[in-house]
Amino acid sequence: MMNNIKKPTILITNDDGYFAPGIRKLISIMRKLGRVIVVASDQPMSGMGHAITIKTPLRIKTVCKEQDYEEYICNGTPVDCVKLGEQVVLKGKPDLLVSGINHGSNASINVIYSGTMAAVLEACIDGIPAIGFSMLDYNHDADFSHVDNYIENISKSVLKNGLPIGVCLNVNLPAFSNEPIKGIKICRQSHARWVEEFDSRHDPRGAVYHWLTGRFENDDAGEDTDQFALENNYVSIVPVQYDLTAYKSIEIIKSWNLEEE
Amino acid sequence: MMNNIKKPTILITNDDGYFAPGIRKLISIMRKLGRVIVVASDQPMSGMGHAITIKTPLRIKTVCKEQDYEEYICNGTPVDCVKLGEQVVLKGKPDLLVSGINHGSNASINVIYSGTMAAVLEACIDGIPAIGFSMLDYNHDADFSHVDNYIENISKSVLKNGLPIGVCLNVNLPAFSNEPIKGIKICRQSHARWVEEFDSRHDPRGAVYHWLTGRFENDDAGEDTDQFALENNYVSIVPVQYDLTAYKSIEIIKSWNLEEE
Repeated sequence: MMNNIKKPTILITNDDGYFAPGIRKLISIMRKLGRVIVVASDQPMSGMGHAITIKTPLRIKTVCKEQDYEEYICNGTPVDCVKLGEQVVLKGKPDLLVSGINHGSNASINVIYSGTMAAVLEACIDGIPAIGFSMLDYNHDADFSHVDNYIENISKSVLKNGLPIGVCLNVNLPAFSNEPIKGIKICRQSHARWVEEFDSRHDPRGAVYHWLTGRFENDDAGEDTDQFALENNYVSIVPVQYDLTAYKSIEIIKSWNLEEE
Repeated sequence: MMNNIKKPTILITNDDGYFAPGIRKLISIMRKLGRVIVVASDQPMSGMGHAITIKTPLRIKTVCKEQDYEEYICNGTPVDCVKLGEQVVLKGKPDLLVSGINHGSNASINVIYSGTMAAVLEACIDGIPAIGFSMLDYNHDADFSHVDNYIENISKSVLKNGLPIGVCLNVNLPAFSNEPIKGIKICRQSHARWVEEFDSRHDPRGAVYHWLTGRFENDDAGEDTDQFALENNYVSIVPVQYDLTAYKSIEIIKSWNLEEE
C-alpha cells in the first residue's frame, strides 16, 4: 500500500514576534503534523487586538524555504500575517491556522485584546479551522516542556473533525509546575476585566506621561469557565465566534419602540 | 419647581481623530443631552481594532475646559482614550460613552476591525452604557445633516433604559441621499467578510511592498441583518457582546473526548 495521503498545510503566526520561544515550540510540534508555513511579525505585537495595517505598506521577507517548511517575517500585525500568508505566500487557504504559543494568558476577557486570537479569528472569518495557543507564563524563557502532547492532540482533532462554521478555538495552558496538568476542560469565557491603574510620571522636562498598567479582576464564580479550569491546573478550550450579536437583547431593544419614529 | 436634575456625563471618542467632522457632529448633538467630555486621538486610528498602547507612554493634552464641556487629545488608540477618559480625566465612570460618528460602515464583520466599536466594547466591559455610531460615507466632508434625530433619540433611550449587562450598541446610519431614511431596524450582524486583494508594487529600489486592500463580500441573504437594513435605507442597531463563547459548539467539542486524555 502506498502512503500517498497529502500532508495538511499548516499556517503559523503569533503576536510575540518570529523570535519568541513560544512560536519556535509551536513550529516544532506542527512540523510533525504537516507542511508548515510560518508568517510572523518582525517585532512583538502584543495588545494589538484585531489591528490591520492600512497607513504603511507591508513588506515580507523569506527567512527560509525548504521541503515542507517555509518561514517569512513581515512588518505587519498578527491579522496582517494571516492575510499575507493566504494571499501572498500560499495564494490559497491552509488546512489549519495555529497562532502562538503566546507568552501569557488569553483566557477570559484577554481574548478581546489579544493579537494571537485576532489572527485566529481572522482565519476563522476566512473559513479556515483555527486554534490559538497561550500559556500562563509571561517570561521569555518560559518552560514549554509539558504542553507538547496537548497541543499535538488538539491540533490533530481539529484536522480530523474540522470546526463548526464561524467557530475557532481559544486554548490556554497552565504554566509549568511540579504538579502535572490534570487534563482538558471545554469551557465558556469567564466574565472578568482589567482594572486600569495608570502609572503617571514626569519626564525630564516636567511633562506628565502615563504607562498603561492594571490588575485582572475575575468576578465570575462559575466552575464552567476558562479561569476556573486554569486555576485548577487544567488546559482550557473555549470555542470562540466572531458573530458579536447579543441575540437575547434584540427583543429588549425592540421593546423601546425606536423603530416607530 | 426647581430643575435640579443632574446632567448626565457623556464621554466621547472616535477612531478618525479629534479633527474629524464626524466627532464634531457627535459632540454638537451630545452637548444638548449632558455634560460632555471628549478624549480623542491626535491622529486617525482606523483599523486599530481593540489595540492598546503598551510599548510607548501615553500623553494627554487639554484642548479646552469650560462649564459642561471638556476636550482632550492624546497619542493613544480609541481603547486607550476610554481608559484615559475614565482613569485620568473623570477618575470615575461616565453615564454614557458614545464613539464616532465613524466615517464609513462598521456594520457586519467590520465590527471586528473597528476602532470605533473597540472603544464601545471597552466601555461595555467596564459596565458603562455605550453606543458606536457610524455612517456609510467614507468622505471627510460627508453630509451628516440627516442623522441628528436618530442619534439623539437612540442616545436618550439608552440614558433612560440602560443596557443589559455585557451588551452595547452598534448603530450604522445610511449615507445622505435624496431619499429620506425610512426608520430604524434592530438587527443581527450580517455574515460577511473582506476578501483581500493586496496591491503589490515595487519601490524605487526595486523591492516589493504590499498595500492592504479588498472587497466586501456579503453571502448572508437574511432580511434581519444590519446589511439588509442599510441597503434598504434604514438605520441598523445591532446589540453587541464581548462574550465570544460559541455556546452551541461546547457540546460538539466535548464529543471529541479530548478531556479523557
